[in-house]
Formats: sequence, C-alpha cells, structure tokens
Amino acid sequence: MSEESLLTTVSIEGPLSMSLPPKEEFSEWYNEVLRTAEIMDVRYPVKGMYVWHPFGFELKDRVYDELKAGLRSTGHDEAMFPLLIPRTELMKEGEHIADFEKEVFWVDRAGVDELEEPLALRPTSETAIYPMFRLWIRSHTDLPLKVFQVVNTFRYETEHTRPLIRLREITSFKEAHTAHASAGEAEAQVDEALGVYGEFFESIGVPFTVTRRPSWDKFPGAEYTYAFDTLMPNGRTLQIGTVHNLGENFAETFDVTFEDEDGEQRHVHQTCYGISERCVAAVIGVHGDDNGLRLPWSVAPVQVAVVPILFAGSEEEVMEACLDVEERLDEEGIRVELDDSDDRPGEKFFRWELRGAPVRIEIGPRDLESDCAKLVSREGEETAVPLEGVVERVQAVASEYDGRLFDEAAANLEDELVKADTIEGARGIVGRGVAVVGWCGEDGCGKSLEEQLNGDLLGALSDREGSGECIGCGSGARVAAAVARTY
Amino acid sequence: MSEESLLTTVSIEGPLSMSLPPKEEFSEWYNEVLRTAEIMDVRYPVKGMYVWHPFGFELKDRVYDELKAGLRSTGHDEAMFPLLIPRTELMKEGEHIADFEKEVFWVDRAGVDELEEPLALRPTSETAIYPMFRLWIRSHTDLPLKVFQVVNTFRYETEHTRPLIRLREITSFKEAHTAHASAGEAEAQVDEALGVYGEFFESIGVPFTVTRRPSWDKFPGAEYTYAFDTLMPNGRTLQIGTVHNLGENFAETFDVTFEDEDGEQRHVHQTCYGISERCVAAVIGVHGDDNGLRLPWSVAPVQVAVVPILFAGSEEEVMEACLDVEERLDEEGIRVELDDSDDRPGEKFFRWELRGAPVRIEIGPRDLESDCAKLVSREGEETAVPLEGVVERVQAVASEYDGRLFDEAAANLEDELVKADTIEGARGIVGRGVAVVGWCGEDGCGKSLEEQLNGDLLGALSDREGSGECIGCGSGARVAAAVARTY
Repeated sequence: MSEESLLTTVSIEGPLSMSLPPKEEFSEWYNEVLRTAEIMDVRYPVKGMYVWHPFGFELKDRVYDELKAGLRSTGHDEAMFPLLIPRTELMKEGEHIADFEKEVFWVDRAGVDELEEPLALRPTSETAIYPMFRLWIRSHTDLPLKVFQVVNTFRYETEHTRPLIRLREITSFKEAHTAHASAGEAEAQVDEALGVYGEFFESIGVPFTVTRRPSWDKFPGAEYTYAFDTLMPNGRTLQIGTVHNLGENFAETFDVTFEDEDGEQRHVHQTCYGISERCVAAVIGVHGDDNGLRLPWSVAPVQVAVVPILFAGSEEEVMEACLDVEERLDEEGIRVELDDSDDRPGEKFFRWELRGAPVRIEIGPRDLESDCAKLVSREGEETAVPLEGVVERVQAVASEYDGRLFDEAAANLEDELVKADTIEGARGIVGRGVAVVGWCGEDGCGKSLEEQLNGDLLGALSDREGSGECIGCGSGARVAAAVARTY
Repeated sequence: MSEESLLTTVSIEGPLSMSLPPKEEFSEWYNEVLRTAEIMDVRYPVKGMYVWHPFGFELKDRVYDELKAGLRSTGHDEAMFPLLIPRTELMKEGEHIADFEKEVFWVDRAGVDELEEPLALRPTSETAIYPMFRLWIRSHTDLPLKVFQVVNTFRYETEHTRPLIRLREITSFKEAHTAHASAGEAEAQVDEALGVYGEFFESIGVPFTVTRRPSWDKFPGAEYTYAFDTLMPNGRTLQIGTVHNLGENFAETFDVTFEDEDGEQRHVHQTCYGISERCVAAVIGVHGDDNGLRLPWSVAPVQVAVVPILFAGSEEEVMEACLDVEERLDEEGIRVELDDSDDRPGEKFFRWELRGAPVRIEIGPRDLESDCAKLVSREGEETAVPLEGVVERVQAVASEYDGRLFDEAAANLEDELVKADTIEGARGIVGRGVAVVGWCGEDGCGKSLEEQLNGDLLGALSDREGSGECIGCGSGARVAAAVARTY
C-alpha cells in the first residue's frame, strides 16, 4: 500500500485532536477509534449500514485471509450463491423462518413490475444453498461436501445498531455449509469447525470461550449450537462465531438425499457455521489501549511505520537512511510505510499508534551519528538498533508479537471467568466479567437464572466439567455454565 | 487447492459425456462448458441469478486479483459502500436515474414494517458513494481521491439473461470512482484508467477495441464514455469495460466541493469506471476450443495437471514419481494438481483439457524406463522430458504461454476488424466481425447507420483516424467508427 493511499484518503473533520477518550469509556473510545483510525464511516444515510474506509477494509481483508486459509486447509471450497431468495424457499423450514421472519428485508417490485414472488435479501443462506445441494448430491461419493462463501447478508435489526457489531448489512458474512453421510461424520465436522475457528481466533489474537448454547438460544432449525464468545472491555461478551449441527432437519425440508453404499436413498446430515465482521470488532476491542488500535502482526495493514526526524541540514541524509530501511523491510515482505507527510513527528507518532502499527522506527540526525535507528514498540518501549541490524530486530519482534498479544488477552479473559457458587456471588460478576456457575442443565432453571442474574446464559463451557450443585435449583450441576451480559 | 476440492464438489448429472458441442455452435458450447467445467450452475430458482461453483469462483478470483493489482499500483484504494441506496439519493441525478429506473429492484418493507423510504438495490454506486465524497473532500489536499470496490449489483434485466454476461445479480462488479481538482486532471485520470484496463485485459489474454461511445450510448450522467469490447466467437462484440468522465455533473448534484489553493470553493471533477464478470466470460469465449477452456497461465486455477498412467505392478513407482513432480512444481509456486481419482486416464485428459490446464504431465511405467515424463500442451503437443528437467520445462512453457495466447487472439480480432467503404460492404461484415467505417460523427447519421447495418455503432476507434467519406452521408469522415452486432 502506497503512503498516499493511507494518508490522503479521508478528511477527518477538523484537525486531529491527538487524543482519544480513555479506553475505560469503551463506547466512546470505540466510536472514536473507528472514526479516526479510518476503519468505518458511520455517516451513511441508512441506519445500521456503514462504509468501510480503505484502512479498515484492508484490516478486514487480512483478518478474513486468515479465516479462509484455515477453511481451505481443511478442504472447504469457496463458492458463491445469490443474494435473493424466493419466498417459498425461505419459508420452507418452519422453525428457521419463525425466527428470521421479523428480520427479513423484502423485494416486491423491480423496475415498473410487481414481482410474481417476493424475494428475500438473505439473512443467512441455508435456504439459498440447500436447494442446490439437492441437485449436487447424488451418491455417497459426493460426500462430504464442504463449501463456504463470504457475502453480504441483511438483518432488519430493531435494536440499537453499532458498526461491526449490530448491523443491518453484514458486509462480510463467512458462512460454511457441509453435508455428510452419517450423524457421526456431521459431529466430527462440528469438531473440525470448532478447531478451525479456535485456531483462527488465536491467529488474530482473540481469546474466547466455547459454550454449547442452551436450547432457546440455538440456531433456528439446528439440533444444537456451539458459540465462541470473547469479552469486550465494557464487561459484555461478544458472540464472534457459531457452529451448528443441523442433523437431518434441512435435508428433510429440502429433500437432500444420497444413495448410500447399499443403494439406499438417505438424507444427508448437515452442519453450518458462521463468522461475521464482529471478529474485526473483537480485534479492535480486545487489544486497543488509550492510544488506539494495537493490531496483531498477522493482520496489521502497516506493521512498521518509519518516521524521519528532520532538521534543517540533515534532511537528505535522514531521508536516505529511512528509504533504505523501508526498502530492506519491504524486501523481506514486511508491510512498511515511510511517513514522509508534512506533519510534525508527534502527529506521526500519534497516527501510527492510533492505527496499531506494532513497530515504529524513528531516524534522526542524532541516531545517524551512531549509525542507529530508534525502534519503538506499540507499547512505547524504545531501543536503539544499529541500522544494519534493523531487519533482524524487526523480525525478532514480529516472531513474538502475536503470541504475547494473545497470551496477555487470554490471561485477562481467564481472570474475568470467575467461579461463583451463589446467585449473589454470580450477580456481582455478571456485567463485569463472566460468571462460571454449576447448572443442572434444565431449561426452566436456566431461564430463571438469566432473570435472577440479569444476564444471558451462554451455555455449558466446553472445556470445564460441572461439579457441586446447580446454583439455580440446588440439584446436581451437570455442567459448568457461563453467564454474562452480552452484546 | 486440494485435489479433493476440485474433484468431488459436484455431481454432474449422469456420466460425463467426454465431448462438448463444437465451439462453432457457440451458445451451446458456452453453456455446456460452464456446466461441465464447473464454472456456474444456472439452476438457481431466480431468473438471471446463478451460483459460482468453486472452480469458477477461483478462476474469477484470480482474474480479479490481476485487476485489483493494476488498480492498487496506480494508487486506487479498496473500500466498500452499502448495497441499499435511499430513494431520494438515487433520484437526485435526473439523467442518471432516467436510465436506470426501469432496472432497479426496490425494498419497501422489512420484517413487519413498511419502510419510511424505499431502498434501492444498487444498480451502480454513484449515488451511494458521492454523498460520502461530499463529507470526505474538503480541501485540494484531499484530491485526487481514488477508490474502488468489488460488490454485487442488481439490474432488473428484461432481456434474455445469460450467465456471466447478462445478469440480474452481477456478483462481482468492480467500480472505481475518482475525484479531481480540475477538468484536465479528470481527463488524465480517464487516460490512466484506459491504461490500467488495457494492461488488465492483456494480462488475462483478452484483446479489445477501445471506442468512444456515441452520445446516445454513454453512461447516464457522464460527459463521455470510452468502452472496451472484445469479439466473441459468434461474431458479436461483448462490452467488457467502460470508463466515464463525469465532469462536474454529479459533483453539482451531490454538492461535492473543495477549497482550492486560493481559498475558493469549487466542484470536483469526477470519473468512474467499471468491469463486471463479463471479463471472465471473455476469457472463456475468446480462448476456448472444442475441448473446453484454454486458460491463461496467469489465472488458471490448475496450471499443471499430473496424470499417473497406472498398470498392475508399477503403480507404486509411478505414483512416487508423480508425487515427486507435484511436490517440485508446488515448491516453485506452480498450481499443480495430481489427479489420483479412480477415473481412466482418458477421462482425466478430458477433464483437464475441459478445465483449461495449460500443461498436462503424464507419467507411466514406460516413461519411467527412460526417466522421463510426457508433457502435453493444452493444444495436444507432446514432448518427452527428463524427470529432473520437468520444472524447468514447465517454467519455460509458462513464460511464453500467455503471450502466445494473447497474440493469437489479438491477431484473430485484427482479422475481424474489417474496413468497409460502403453500406453494402459493412452489412456483410456486421454479425460476423466488426465493420470499420468512416463516420461524420453526427448523431442522426450514426443512428441511421445502426438501422441500415442492423448493428450497434460502438463509436470512434481510439487508435484509428477517420479518412475519406462517411459511409452514411458522404460528408467527411471525422472518425473511424466500429459497427458490430453486440451482446
């Protein structure tokens, strides 16, 4: 990316104030970071629909590249299905549509014609894809079938909308859909999906819990749903990914069958799983600090910002050294940006911290006297490095940067997962972190817990066992459940 | 891409017939290639909306990667704007909407609500983007502004729809939008865009003409329009790209102004230019032959297919050699696929010719006796190559493959650009190729020419001068115009 492309795209209204609200005021901080770091513009004249700035778009693309790589390496093929779904298809699966119907945007007319059949803007694509699966799948040799697409989807959200988090146009919904010959294979696919997602979130530095959602919160039409949640700085959890075992429900509805090895026609077993641009919100929310974004090395559009410190008389020499450093980093495939704008150095420091560049390199006449450059980490740690060793030093930082970012965030999440043995204890946790409580697993008891705790029961934590008593009803705790206030 | 991903995705109905209609029957050939090579599935239950198969999707992605690279290297930033456009914005530019209104899909309701304001599914994004330009552009230092997006757009086509060519959902519309401080800079941007597009089409092996569209065929709201056309095998030209100078029209409508160096508020000068998945149709149509696709090396999802020739007793040895060749090619970044499916070799040959792999490598026990592999070009030329020299030989093929493909197609187009000095002469060309005629440049005369020739006047060829007389009215020929039957 050329410098111009980053620096001249957008006029922030008025001069950059060179400060953000403190991250503790998370909502204000979040909006201001999206604006000033040029992630999204919220001024588009339709509620819940936003504009990706180039910097934000590149960040999103790099995040999705990680996700796609994980899917491809496990045999998922990328395809693309139409946006518009005929009403009859959308309405076929009763439980599914009952849940989505209030959220659907409809096209009834085009040009000067009323359409014979209304078309839905996909809220999710099961009903667009499975009629094609019916045509594609004939024999057990066609299975497993594993495809995904990254598309815009639409939900008529009536709650307060929020960029990247609660949208009417989800611009980049990654949805995977699979079909299998047996229930066992579908279950194994759920496990594979959980693994792919887990590795993906770790690759972008986002720690998570995995829970099996309670029955009233599963995907409509699914047998069961696992969900990934992360904890945002305001104490609310954000659902960032879901994995569903659809059993034979949709296969029965859409008549998706295959001939098995004995020549019998049988329904396929299906799974689907999705991730939206909430994963970008998670990267922003989990790692940012009072100075702005802190982006993992893996996805930062600019990994190293080079800032020349110019004084009259030594400009040429300094710029030459900066260009040389830029070139050598670039040759190693490092995303480097030489900031030769007219701004003062302090403004440049602010800009690149705001935009989450993991490393800043400053070079001024005094550094050159000792043939050095100053490396400054995103956290402000300064090191003088001989010019000839800059590339190696940057590579050393790169090699440990994301691990440290993830470990720090994971430790923080772990700290906020707090075991509570009583309703009272749990109440003190929900809203600040995640309460881990014994739960009997009964729906009625779970819903009552949600009311008493003024939070959502995320479900049974997949990596913990239940023990002791259910904090709701006192019977045996079948599972360790997570309860939190959610987005 | 793993082998599995290519081979097991889709059940073609019934066994593959191992033959296509001859390419001379272009319409049948085209549909059958899209189906059997797994580019698109046309059986989606909404007219004019189709499904990208994984193989087709990967081809499309690689084609668009070439396009995006050209845009990025000339300072265009990728952004993304919402799909839905408020009716008031869409209706603002009178000439623009007059042309698009009959083609717009409308959303009037969502969930159980009637929307206060109807929302249009973008037919193109000027009216979504320029209200944001108004917010983004304040000063001459914000100019030039050059962004692009790749998005789905919607046109309620009433003519016969056709996959990749005439769509109701264009899944991958690349549209670029720029703003400049002066008319001269906008004109220079038009030149830059023509250059980027020209290099792009050459990179995917598609020859073209560039014409300045007659006034009645320019983009609604533009001052003038240049268009790229290629010639499809049925003698019709296909418009594959357009470049528009919008002047200050939209800037006036959307109040996009900037403060110039003297402190004056002035309107920006704008350009926009677009390419749709028709560029993929062009790659398919221009190069294919009776055996299927012939894909340029640059974009072929599989560049080299390795086919083991297995006989009882030597399977292990042959597979080992195939795996070794696959590995060595893969290490060099070549997209190689070892076809170890259970199909007979003849079926594999057919498959990889159908899918346009530039090179096939066959290895059987007899080849191994002389430590050789058999390289077969997509055109059927066979060469025995020592196993140790396979990589170098493939690289040698790669280095000249696309140039040859383009030169061949360009020579063919040149042959079909036939100068005609009379109406009668031109009539004999239109429908088979492109008639090049002297034209006075007057609208009335041009429209009459279209009627007399039963074709479309593409406009003045940008690389030829007018000479002699206008074949319509006999006055001086200001330009050399192209006339053809079009898609």
